[in-house]
Amino acid sequence: MVAMMQLAHTALAELTTPALLLDSTVLERNCDAMSRRAARHGVALRPHLKTSKSADVARLATRGHSGAITVSTIAEADYFARHGFDDLTYAVGISAGKVDALHRIQRMHGARLTLLADRVEAVQAVAARARALGARFKVLIEVDTGGGRGGVAPDDEHALLALAAEVQRSGALTLAGVLTHAGHSYHANGLAAIRAIAEAERAGAVRAAECLRAGGFEVDVVSVGATPTAVCAERLDGVTEMRPGVYTFFDLDQAARGICGIEDIALSVLATVIGHNPRSRRVLIDAGALALSKDESGAEFRDGLGFGLVCHAGNTRPLPGLRVAELHQEHGLIACDGDGAGHTPEALQEELQALFEALPIGGRVRILPHHACMTAAPYDRYHVVRGAGTQVHAVWGKARGWHAAGPDA
Amino acid sequence: MVAMMQLAHTALAELTTPALLLDSTVLERNCDAMSRRAARHGVALRPHLKTSKSADVARLATRGHSGAITVSTIAEADYFARHGFDDLTYAVGISAGKVDALHRIQRMHGARLTLLADRVEAVQAVAARARALGARFKVLIEVDTGGGRGGVAPDDEHALLALAAEVQRSGALTLAGVLTHAGHSYHANGLAAIRAIAEAERAGAVRAAECLRAGGFEVDVVSVGATPTAVCAERLDGVTEMRPGVYTFFDLDQAARGICGIEDIALSVLATVIGHNPRSRRVLIDAGALALSKDESGAEFRDGLGFGLVCHAGNTRPLPGLRVAELHQEHGLIACDGDGAGHTPEALQEELQALFEALPIGGRVRILPHHACMTAAPYDRYHVVRGAGTQVHAVWGKARGWHAAGPDA
Repeated sequence: MVAMMQLAHTALAELTTPALLLDSTVLERNCDAMSRRAARHGVALRPHLKTSKSADVARLATRGHSGAITVSTIAEADYFARHGFDDLTYAVGISAGKVDALHRIQRMHGARLTLLADRVEAVQAVAARARALGARFKVLIEVDTGGGRGGVAPDDEHALLALAAEVQRSGALTLAGVLTHAGHSYHANGLAAIRAIAEAERAGAVRAAECLRAGGFEVDVVSVGATPTAVCAERLDGVTEMRPGVYTFFDLDQAARGICGIEDIALSVLATVIGHNPRSRRVLIDAGALALSKDESGAEFRDGLGFGLVCHAGNTRPLPGLRVAELHQEHGLIACDGDGAGHTPEALQEELQALFEALPIGGRVRILPHHACMTAAPYDRYHVVRGAGTQVHAVWGKARGWHAAGPDA
Repeated sequence: MVAMMQLAHTALAELTTPALLLDSTVLERNCDAMSRRAARHGVALRPHLKTSKSADVARLATRGHSGAITVSTIAEADYFARHGFDDLTYAVGISAGKVDALHRIQRMHGARLTLLADRVEAVQAVAARARALGARFKVLIEVDTGGGRGGVAPDDEHALLALAAEVQRSGALTLAGVLTHAGHSYHANGLAAIRAIAEAERAGAVRAAECLRAGGFEVDVVSVGATPTAVCAERLDGVTEMRPGVYTFFDLDQAARGICGIEDIALSVLATVIGHNPRSRRVLIDAGALALSKDESGAEFRDGLGFGLVCHAGNTRPLPGLRVAELHQEHGLIACDGDGAGHTPEALQEELQALFEALPIGGRVRILPHHACMTAAPYDRYHVVRGAGTQVHAVWGKARGWHAAGPDA
């Protein structure tokens, strides 16, 4: 921790690259906008922290809310419980093999974990293990409102009621409600299409909840959420909470579909220019496939993004016509848009000269990533900047990997 | 370390998933085959440890050789120096911002680092920083033999001689020789094409070395290497060392082009079946885009690989017709090949039933990855198995991330 503090108030130029930069001005603006959106809809905000895996981000994202959050790994559950977050939804279908670790997190840190299930046999196996440990968990039934990932169909009354009954008879689990995630909204083209998915997400979750209530079960939680649907939803009647995540950072994938602007992207990767290759017309940087991720999801909606857009180190305004064109494990290769096609040899040479002059060897660039969750995941920390500044004003730790810290990690 | 030892001799069924499995029987066979190949060509083997980032793997890969290795990050250089490896080539173009960290690694652990450069201005900046610190490094000149990444052209005598002269006059750097990496061999279709690239890699490196010798410079090292060219090279006259890396583990990408067989893949990811979705015809597992990586490089050469092939937990024989069809952050979705196209509704139902029975909820699978380097990178450890066994007989630590451990990490 002392070591981390020493890094604050250093200049970007002094950081070892690749490094993960987080613009706290943009982050706060994104958090506040989503907070207001939840308030306007009259629902609780339970942000998904799988994007940032950071307690500092979680504190900003839950400001003015209960502090409830969503996580996707045992490592995240453990990390946030250690940092005082005590109301956690573990939003990946639960299996019995994870119960011991989750029980330990509840016991050691006083957190309450809510689990997710969509199959009777999983509920039985999890309940058996929980009973053996003397553990208790709340459970949400996962509903598939079109994502085709986990969940029972919202109109499958038989499955919903069987699951609820199994949870209630388990002796170790308590039914909390229903949860859905419209992950397919990430592939919808246009805001109208996303609005329709948001409404299907809402209606499906509410329908499942009403089915359970009609069957005599208490349903406190009707949880929906994905950043695109959270941004685009017109109404959330019957919903009790939303769980968006990537909105905290935003990224090229969200910007490509108009869910945010480029200026709303809070996350970038600082890299050093390590070479110029005139034969391949490439500028080499020391941020490659591991530092940026090979995710290029924004390409579904916008051309010319490559594996990321390129900015000078002091800001996040993309340099026109430049993109990360290729990735190797620890190398990124920046190219010009179109790369001189149709130009005269003289114009090609001038273009190349301009590229190399704009990005001199030893200089620093920021790369805007396609998918903030993928890019941030392998890093240990954020270097926090404010707006267009080049000073690091804080260093924030984060979780990573899959295992709980501690004696058996 | 004690905690890690406790995990040895547990069964695969008891591991928390996702977990990275390493078959040491296959690993040793892969290492021995490459070791014999290097011996047959009369060149030194300096394996690239960016794939495994593991000292245990490095010890097997350098058995019978000098112990010299190749690394791609400061984190790896630091980790291997701490584990007693004292002859390290840092095979990413050097920049002045990394000199302090590398100097510290040399000073604290008695390692000797060889750096890579291809531009006079980088040599000047690195030398200036090295002189300020009183540091000394050996330097290899990077040659581009067709990869289009780093390096000067092998026939660019002016650039080669200018670089060599700059290194020698720096007062802090010593010229060691030349290095090239035929990264484009990863995209070559067919063994004949790879053999041609291997010969161009060899000839280019030797030509650059001879140009330097003719200019009066001593050239001890002529370094080539990439797994495809190392496997396929017919002769390595004039070369002094090879630096393949991924051969230690192999993967679907290498298998797709016939560089190895499926049975030569030593690395896999253990996952738990967490759901069945009859509507989307998917089996859900708890290994997603972070646990497997979104790399699908093998798709360039073979259809039907999805984001990985699926095996039962006790072996690495792919289950016919199954693949990881979709990835979300922490979810993988397994589907059948062709997915029942053209079948009757009854046949579709039977196929689905067979899929769900083969992969029951709570059961475990192993996924063979496309690109071992990408998949292994974010993990902290390997669970080591032998052949088709289901017992973990060792747990091996590894490096990850970009920063050196220690007081300023």
